[in-house]
Amino acid sequence: MSDELKKENLIKLNLEGVRMEYPSQKPIILLKEETGDRFLPIWIGAFEASAIALEMVHYKTPRPMTHDLIIKILEKLDAHVENIIISEIKDDTFYAIIQLILNKGEKEIEIDSRPSDAIAIAVRCNAPIYTTNKVITEAGLLITSIEEEVEKFKDFLDHTNPEDFNI
Amino acid sequence: MSDELKKENLIKLNLEGVRMEYPSQKPIILLKEETGDRFLPIWIGAFEASAIALEMVHYKTPRPMTHDLIIKILEKLDAHVENIIISEIKDDTFYAIIQLILNKGEKEIEIDSRPSDAIAIAVRCNAPIYTTNKVITEAGLLITSIEEEVEKFKDFLDHTNPEDFNI
Repeated sequence: MSDELKKENLIKLNLEGVRMEYPSQKPIILLKEETGDRFLPIWIGAFEASAIALEMVHYKTPRPMTHDLIIKILEKLDAHVENIIISEIKDDTFYAIIQLILNKGEKEIEIDSRPSDAIAIAVRCNAPIYTTNKVITEAGLLITSIEEEVEKFKDFLDHTNPEDFNI
Repeated sequence: MSDELKKENLIKLNLEGVRMEYPSQKPIILLKEETGDRFLPIWIGAFEASAIALEMVHYKTPRPMTHDLIIKILEKLDAHVENIIISEIKDDTFYAIIQLILNKGEKEIEIDSRPSDAIAIAVRCNAPIYTTNKVITEAGLLITSIEEEVEKFKDFLDHTNPEDFNI
């Protein structure tokens, strides 16, 4: 593990929400550093956006979603999600790592993932979300009118209709 | 494990394809028994349909899809997909089981799944697909004009444009 991925060097992020970006109509995840004012916006697919947004409002879909199946697989295989890390940005593309603890703390395993899948997993098991100093320095944004942004997220969640998604 | 789920009582299915059903425009998976003429049609979500159809034509998406992540998780946790079973139909809803072998054949694990997720996993690791005699008796269909149906599946795959999916 590189130094920048060591826990003491990581920056904790809170998941602020999922919203639709206009006019592209592409969903975006907004993460905010816990002890600072920078936001990390990550564009994601519509399916992953619904997997995150529905879980944030604790909506129980009639059938388990694909990320619910992942949680079930991890449980059955005695693996625990320690945390996820938005680890890198390269050519405007974000990369993430899922850190698992296997068999009651005996073995650590790292799995490369898209940030959207990693976050959809993290919200289902309350795993903390981190990033590196390098990523937040390169891609972090200061959003001055936070209240307005938060209202937009709430608006997105309020208007999230599970029937719009293919679940 | 109930008797009907024992390997000697299972019926092997081949994945014939994914197509769009009209006028509902809902994707459907078509499975066919290997040693008989009955088909098992299962309606699924658009995301899962793309996850299956793209893998069938060996299309490599620019980023790994959620089911690719599941395969990676299973590999990292030393779990091998032994097979999947379309195990039950209840109120027109199909249920499936993913049977895993853990740690080089030492431990068997069963995971409940939607058939679409189970099949999207099976096509990625060439795991056999089975069903029970009860399910195929209840839900199996004889389709007389197989050639026409196969042409329709091919047509669906030919016209599957990865950019239409949120990947």
